[in-house]
Amino acid sequence: MAEPVLINGEWKQANASSTFQSFNPNTTEPIPFEFPVSSWSDCDEALSAAAAAASELRTLSGSQIAAFLRAFADRIEARADQLVEAAHQETALPKSPRLADVELPRTTNQLRLAAQAAEEGSWRQATIDTKAGIRSVYEAIGPVAVFGPNNFPFAFGSVSGGDFAAAIAAGNPVIGKANSSHPRTTQLFAEAALEAIQATDVPAATVQLIYRTSHADGERLVADNRLGAVGYTGSRSAGLKLKAAADVVGKPIYLELSSVNPVVILPGALNERLDELVDEFCTSGLMGAGQFCTNPGLLVLCQGAETDAFLQKVAERYGSSAAGTLLSQGVQKSLGQSVQTLQAAGAETVVGSAKPESNRFACENTLLKVTADAFLARPEQLQTEAFGNCSLVLIANDVSQVGQVVQHLEGNLTGCIYSATNGTDDAAYNQIAPALRQKVGRLLNDKMPTGVAVSMAMNHGGPFPATGHPGFTAVGIPASIHRFAVLACYDNVRSHRLPNCLQDKNPNGKMWRYVDGQWTTGNIG
Amino acid sequence: MAEPVLINGEWKQANASSTFQSFNPNTTEPIPFEFPVSSWSDCDEALSAAAAAASELRTLSGSQIAAFLRAFADRIEARADQLVEAAHQETALPKSPRLADVELPRTTNQLRLAAQAAEEGSWRQATIDTKAGIRSVYEAIGPVAVFGPNNFPFAFGSVSGGDFAAAIAAGNPVIGKANSSHPRTTQLFAEAALEAIQATDVPAATVQLIYRTSHADGERLVADNRLGAVGYTGSRSAGLKLKAAADVVGKPIYLELSSVNPVVILPGALNERLDELVDEFCTSGLMGAGQFCTNPGLLVLCQGAETDAFLQKVAERYGSSAAGTLLSQGVQKSLGQSVQTLQAAGAETVVGSAKPESNRFACENTLLKVTADAFLARPEQLQTEAFGNCSLVLIANDVSQVGQVVQHLEGNLTGCIYSATNGTDDAAYNQIAPALRQKVGRLLNDKMPTGVAVSMAMNHGGPFPATGHPGFTAVGIPASIHRFAVLACYDNVRSHRLPNCLQDKNPNGKMWRYVDGQWTTGNIG
Repeated sequence: MAEPVLINGEWKQANASSTFQSFNPNTTEPIPFEFPVSSWSDCDEALSAAAAAASELRTLSGSQIAAFLRAFADRIEARADQLVEAAHQETALPKSPRLADVELPRTTNQLRLAAQAAEEGSWRQATIDTKAGIRSVYEAIGPVAVFGPNNFPFAFGSVSGGDFAAAIAAGNPVIGKANSSHPRTTQLFAEAALEAIQATDVPAATVQLIYRTSHADGERLVADNRLGAVGYTGSRSAGLKLKAAADVVGKPIYLELSSVNPVVILPGALNERLDELVDEFCTSGLMGAGQFCTNPGLLVLCQGAETDAFLQKVAERYGSSAAGTLLSQGVQKSLGQSVQTLQAAGAETVVGSAKPESNRFACENTLLKVTADAFLARPEQLQTEAFGNCSLVLIANDVSQVGQVVQHLEGNLTGCIYSATNGTDDAAYNQIAPALRQKVGRLLNDKMPTGVAVSMAMNHGGPFPATGHPGFTAVGIPASIHRFAVLACYDNVRSHRLPNCLQDKNPNGKMWRYVDGQWTTGNIG
Repeated sequence: MAEPVLINGEWKQANASSTFQSFNPNTTEPIPFEFPVSSWSDCDEALSAAAAAASELRTLSGSQIAAFLRAFADRIEARADQLVEAAHQETALPKSPRLADVELPRTTNQLRLAAQAAEEGSWRQATIDTKAGIRSVYEAIGPVAVFGPNNFPFAFGSVSGGDFAAAIAAGNPVIGKANSSHPRTTQLFAEAALEAIQATDVPAATVQLIYRTSHADGERLVADNRLGAVGYTGSRSAGLKLKAAADVVGKPIYLELSSVNPVVILPGALNERLDELVDEFCTSGLMGAGQFCTNPGLLVLCQGAETDAFLQKVAERYGSSAAGTLLSQGVQKSLGQSVQTLQAAGAETVVGSAKPESNRFACENTLLKVTADAFLARPEQLQTEAFGNCSLVLIANDVSQVGQVVQHLEGNLTGCIYSATNGTDDAAYNQIAPALRQKVGRLLNDKMPTGVAVSMAMNHGGPFPATGHPGFTAVGIPASIHRFAVLACYDNVRSHRLPNCLQDKNPNGKMWRYVDGQWTTGNIG
């Protein structure tokens, strides 16, 4: 009997066309739970329930939505051991510190920040023109379908992560589509969410869960008229298919697709702190077997003796470090394919070659190198994301050629430049940074990109094809909430009919509003 | 000899595949200027020049961009008579008050508001997390292609209007694609823009102009890698083709497509002020021969004796008012087709029938009516926008059926409810408003939608297919500027390398920044 789906507050048997299982990456053995591949009728039922829930959610206050988010965070903490165990089984991510001490607190922190944002209301950017009698505000967009990725079963999970928290904070119900590599973990989150729903004022269909659909039904789901928007994090190929389906009907879809996250180390920096940089790069590159959206997949250096020394030390470290376990057979397979693509395009193997292991999902740590000349001849193939424990080192003749390489980069989530502290790299920095700035959502100095702080100033986004739109971020509250909102204007609407947040009296004395060109937490008049 | 295009600061002969002329709608005679249909090489040249200009613009201050916008506004005023004359010839819009006293001042006002926004910088929403060392800000997206509509040759013009002002304020160069019905007017604006370019610090390619391309080249243009974004206002069919081309490459495209702008008049309001409402509706419906994006094309009433009386008076007014001149033969033709579509779907003709005149571009004022039952049977056809002097009156059995009608509406720019002042309509309002709110960008009370105030709280936007994304507005500064910006994050970037607006010192003491969760114009630390 397949595990039930969560639709409109009830765990019920799916209308399933088939079933699937997740696998323990440390053993390659299937995990003994069968999950349904839902037919369209499950999606249809979830969409109708979500549409009704969306209307009901619009009548609730920010505090009521916050109460649900906090109750959910509490229940996640109460189930921490169970969640960590299930996620470890399904993903092989270490229980500690990774799952229990890093990702779980990050997840509950996000939910509580989202609660605070929903309650305070400043994210709505209420804008009031008292003379014209026009007032506008961000309001809920409607039901949001969230497709979570494989690599963060908690913090980016379909019914627990950043997209989820942002969609709920904006006042929308969520239909979660579990990632196929950790359905059991997602199910446990949905159980906790349902308990929180039952303990608070939000409607039963505020959180729903299906595990998998056919590709055709997935495309039908994201284009459905009852849906408000979509959040997707995952492979570029699957994401672009969903985007095409959503675009035809003008449905906002926020995608996080792929990124090689170029890191440029300028000669002065290498000269100044070579060993430190070896350590920083290898730690970041191999962390979590390289399975981060912000993994530094492309390292750019200028040729020279220090670069040779650096490369040799990195090669030693890659060669001698134990290869981390990969999240799934799919990751193992696609890593091998990407490495082959890179090699076929001219990348030379320094160590490893992504050879798969048979008793667990893993490949050797792999370090490739390529000249900038070769890169410039085949920039598209040589930017193939090798998701996993593989890095490509690009060696340019000089800083000017680094500039050319940067011009040929696709859109990325991040880009980083390391430079000397004594100013010797400053001219080179100024030559490269303006172009790199245009290619990335987040520009870093002297810091690897793997950490994505949950900060109000974070941008976990960037130009296509890193994401679907360069104006939005998937991490960072309040900005990430805007993805799941519409701009709603009230023109000459009678005062008592305005939403609380647009009335003359500031609803809680804390909500920032833009009144006649000034940001204020005060009342009007 | 065809008129020249403006590329990279020079008026030069186009690489033209053919030529076209505009027509005087008051005579149907061609106007004696020939304009080129540019080949791809013109687009290609403009794109390269724009890409270089975009880099240069990033190095200028907001004040330098503001100086250009103000110089341009001054030059528009200096050429006011010439612009008004040309636009009157090409569009038949009255010289006064419409062109000279309403649209021209609106246009220069928009440019000066954009200048103020560029200079002050608050639109950038600089967000600073001092503890995390992360700072983010909206920055220019890159060259913007603007496709202006036929109905506002000044205020929405490709190189003078709202999209233009917003794109420039964000720091982007603009490639204008003239509307084919008023190329001469657009050319004159580009001449004024070039003078302003030459008088200020902005690069030569800050404003470029082509008049027309093939459809294929238009689609190639919006998908080009050198372009940052697109602003389009016009027909739904052409807009959706450009959107499809842009979507494939993840290029932000902001569209304003079509809208019937439903107006609901509740029974109590009709009972209370019938004559006033007849006047308001007829004035709004026939203003400018109905050629406004926010023309009230769909009027929704409940059956009854007052509704019969209202309809009779509106019919008299439509029948006795002179039919305004239409903007072009294209408008005349498509109005006739839309009326036929509505009639074929069951709409009954009350007065007029969109019969075209032969000595000018015009059709009879046309009033159609349909029952809500008929509408609900064919909601798609009966929402066909009849752009021009035609209105459809929908008569419902009761308020509850009005609610059903609202559920079947597509996305619109505006939606309006008139209700009695004595409270008798309040229950009906509460029954209808929540659903109408979800279908429109701007909700009005007791006011026709045709006026679109240039207010910071305006939303000239709405759900698809009224626009391409429900989170953005095409009118209203600063919000409209966000369309042409990307979110740019700086993580651990050394202080002296940050853009001015993200440094600890507030760059001008006026720019609002969101610092550690508080909006402030102060310095940090």
